[in-house]
Amino acid sequence: MRERIYLFDTTLRDGQQTPGIDFSVEDKIAIAAMLDEFGLDYVEGGYPGANPTDTTFFAEKRTRRAKFVAFGMTKRAGVSTSNDPGLATLLQARSDAVCYVAKSWDYHVRVALGVTNEENLESIRASVEAARDAGKEPMVDCEHFFDGFKANPDYALACARTAYDAGARWVVLCDTNGGTQPSEVREIVAKVIGSGIPGANLGIHAHDDTGQAVANSLAAIEAGVRQVQGTINGIGERCGNANLVTIIPTLALKPHFAGRFETGVSDEALTGISRLSRAFDELLNRAPEAQSPYVGASAFATKAGIHASAIAKEPKTYEHVPPEAVGNRRKVMVSDQGGKANFVAELKRRGIDVPREDRRLDALIAVVKEREAEGYAYEGADASFELLARGMLHTVPDFFRVTSFRCLVERRFDANGNLKTVSEAVVKVLVDGEEKMSVAEGDGPVNALDIALRKDLGKFQHEIGDLELADYKVRILNGGTEAITRVLIESHDGTGARWWTVGVSTNIIDASFQALMDSIIYKLMKNRDMAGLVAAE
Amino acid sequence: MRERIYLFDTTLRDGQQTPGIDFSVEDKIAIAAMLDEFGLDYVEGGYPGANPTDTTFFAEKRTRRAKFVAFGMTKRAGVSTSNDPGLATLLQARSDAVCYVAKSWDYHVRVALGVTNEENLESIRASVEAARDAGKEPMVDCEHFFDGFKANPDYALACARTAYDAGARWVVLCDTNGGTQPSEVREIVAKVIGSGIPGANLGIHAHDDTGQAVANSLAAIEAGVRQVQGTINGIGERCGNANLVTIIPTLALKPHFAGRFETGVSDEALTGISRLSRAFDELLNRAPEAQSPYVGASAFATKAGIHASAIAKEPKTYEHVPPEAVGNRRKVMVSDQGGKANFVAELKRRGIDVPREDRRLDALIAVVKEREAEGYAYEGADASFELLARGMLHTVPDFFRVTSFRCLVERRFDANGNLKTVSEAVVKVLVDGEEKMSVAEGDGPVNALDIALRKDLGKFQHEIGDLELADYKVRILNGGTEAITRVLIESHDGTGARWWTVGVSTNIIDASFQALMDSIIYKLMKNRDMAGLVAAE
Repeated sequence: MRERIYLFDTTLRDGQQTPGIDFSVEDKIAIAAMLDEFGLDYVEGGYPGANPTDTTFFAEKRTRRAKFVAFGMTKRAGVSTSNDPGLATLLQARSDAVCYVAKSWDYHVRVALGVTNEENLESIRASVEAARDAGKEPMVDCEHFFDGFKANPDYALACARTAYDAGARWVVLCDTNGGTQPSEVREIVAKVIGSGIPGANLGIHAHDDTGQAVANSLAAIEAGVRQVQGTINGIGERCGNANLVTIIPTLALKPHFAGRFETGVSDEALTGISRLSRAFDELLNRAPEAQSPYVGASAFATKAGIHASAIAKEPKTYEHVPPEAVGNRRKVMVSDQGGKANFVAELKRRGIDVPREDRRLDALIAVVKEREAEGYAYEGADASFELLARGMLHTVPDFFRVTSFRCLVERRFDANGNLKTVSEAVVKVLVDGEEKMSVAEGDGPVNALDIALRKDLGKFQHEIGDLELADYKVRILNGGTEAITRVLIESHDGTGARWWTVGVSTNIIDASFQALMDSIIYKLMKNRDMAGLVAAE
Repeated sequence: MRERIYLFDTTLRDGQQTPGIDFSVEDKIAIAAMLDEFGLDYVEGGYPGANPTDTTFFAEKRTRRAKFVAFGMTKRAGVSTSNDPGLATLLQARSDAVCYVAKSWDYHVRVALGVTNEENLESIRASVEAARDAGKEPMVDCEHFFDGFKANPDYALACARTAYDAGARWVVLCDTNGGTQPSEVREIVAKVIGSGIPGANLGIHAHDDTGQAVANSLAAIEAGVRQVQGTINGIGERCGNANLVTIIPTLALKPHFAGRFETGVSDEALTGISRLSRAFDELLNRAPEAQSPYVGASAFATKAGIHASAIAKEPKTYEHVPPEAVGNRRKVMVSDQGGKANFVAELKRRGIDVPREDRRLDALIAVVKEREAEGYAYEGADASFELLARGMLHTVPDFFRVTSFRCLVERRFDANGNLKTVSEAVVKVLVDGEEKMSVAEGDGPVNALDIALRKDLGKFQHEIGDLELADYKVRILNGGTEAITRVLIESHDGTGARWWTVGVSTNIIDASFQALMDSIIYKLMKNRDMAGLVAAE
């Protein structure tokens, strides 16, 4: 019989404290739906009454399965619960549960709240009861609990105890400043449970200020707590909150936990966690972190030649969990460090079967090595690699040809005497023997070239309407006057597919042009589905 | 009496397995110098003999204080140490120490090496002795130690024991697949020590596949190991290695560890860790992670809300460590006093004395903040910062003015039918009321612009003969179509001076132009003897 761990998501509340993140009501509705569907137990939506976004968001219940949680402060000292307008707004929000934040470090009670220790306890008690009376599940985030416990254990415990005795379903121990170490968490949680609050009513809320939010959360679970709070991709104030995207697979897949615990996330739902993580970044318009545990593009990637051939034989002994369990995939990187086995495995994954003895394979490897020596980086440009491989092993249709282009950047004084820089590009393309000429202005020469290039591809034009440039990276490979420029371009289209292409040249415009061309050709090839050969991620 | 923890950096070896990272010999030399100066005990440089880069890198000793470590495999079974060419190359490398990787999971001994368990032990023994005989400090990375221990504890221990008995200074327990949990690390390390290998000879090598590489490293230290391996900013295969940039401040600043342990990094050196982390990302041309523990731009940032005003009153109760201890800054309000003190100190360092009350100082701070929000990075562009400061606090002579420029990049078929790309730039400059017009071709539009710009500066021309562009870096600050481009240019001249300038624009040519202009103006100002200029005002 495995014990249930309750997953509490605070992406929409504490996650909103992340520098640079500001959710709209629409964002919140979309994210709440993702979290709900994924199988989390609690979705904390924000602080109704604190700002118009959160107030609007709480005008309706936004989850179907998960409990929808409103966050807010305990009642002010000196007024009754019925005379505190903030509390009234909180209790009127359309939530299933209320999570109060309560000070549990006597220093903060005195300095930040300016009330007595007893008044603070009374606010906790009365607020929990008011939530219960309003038909909501009450819970209390004990702010600064661990630092408070170190400074004054009796008072910190009294706050937790008061919440529990008043009927809080969960008493959540918060490491608000994020500096507590796992051994300390373990020890203090044991003392809290020893004081008489059951672990079945305790939660943990950890921050990543020493890079140990996940470890602190898991240490607390080992010590007995049964609710864990965190955010998607670990967003949050300062260094972020505990990353649920890391904690959930660890609880489900690592034997150390999986035998003892279970969560509301099914094995099937778990295979959607990579997608969830990427979709969330997509919504925030951030590049996903390639090295994220479990879900990152590199999480199951191997570059080393010495490991690569062995992985192909017996992946289990090189992978701590199977990538499919989290909806990710194995990636044996093509690079000059890897051997022939890397190439065969990578080509196979892309639906290109080629026997090890095939001479064209040796030719392909030689070309890749030569190009990587020039500065190409195929491990970061899957689509360019696939185009190159298909071109040498099979064929790539000759869709169109650019016969010439020209970019002009001019900085001069405009009619009003202001300095102005204008970028313009002209492209000549040959499609089916017919020459098309396009011109465009852009934010810079590459942008102008990109627009001009995609302006008129004749009969292919309708096929690239959903092609978008998502990211553009430039690296100067060696400094000084003989610099080689490497350009990587990420593209995506309406199907949700994303691909990277690469270009290298002493001339940044040329390098960009190569990567842009590869992207368009890959898109056209992908559209043709090449007999189901193209792997769309 | 605090116990010494030895810091072992593997950025240049295991870090090189990071997808997308490929160090050149010059990169390695620069990074080794940074690590050495910072105070790490061991700098592992790579695998001499495995590739030309590492072989060249090990042609010389590259550290001054730190022990310089060569990584390689134990001798092959069936040959003597003197007949193994790989081992010979390793021992001939100019290193102080040798770190062997040895299988310690019997499964891998059988399947990956294809030798008997005894042959593997014999390889470990003989290789350690060979290193000792060659006058090198020997150490052994026990690959797959934790998984191996779970599968066959006796054999894993036998590997560690053999290394120790043969005289290995360090026996390093590696969580190669990265899936081991902190509790398991704690338990297994205790068993290894219990078997008779002293903690003083044990190291830990953790990976971040469950987001707990830091926690695993610290758990191993708590359990008794005294060497910790990791990388700068946690780079490494898959999800990365243990992040030394997180571990070092935790050991030094968190009371849980600081009272018991010490490292070779002085308190003063520790204040350089934010700079080290950022300089490393700069070298890799990656955007620093804002939420990195201790060193991230957001690590001590608080967004407006319930905490912000309280932090101003008593930061210590809201910050788990003081940001100055790691060379980082609190970020709460726009004009915090700490920020001003930083400016005054930085200006003073550059010979610009300005009183704190000077209103122009506030104006300068406001402009710097505004520009940094737009994407400028003055931390990495000392000369541009100095020009800006001098321009606002004193004056910078109006040497010359560029009235207009034009860059043209054209790709077309040449007379022989080959595709050819030509870049040309035209620049109009006003010097002393006289207009000069120059034209140049280059390897790309920026190179052409650089050459044209420096072709004829009239009476200043003779002053910039020794000015050279040493490095050029481009970063796209946000992907997609609204990308902002930041260009950093390093220049040097005949006096050996080097300086960095910055430009930011949606247009890469504009951004490059700004940085090029700053570089020339800085050079002219520098020629005029800045010290004299300042003294005169």
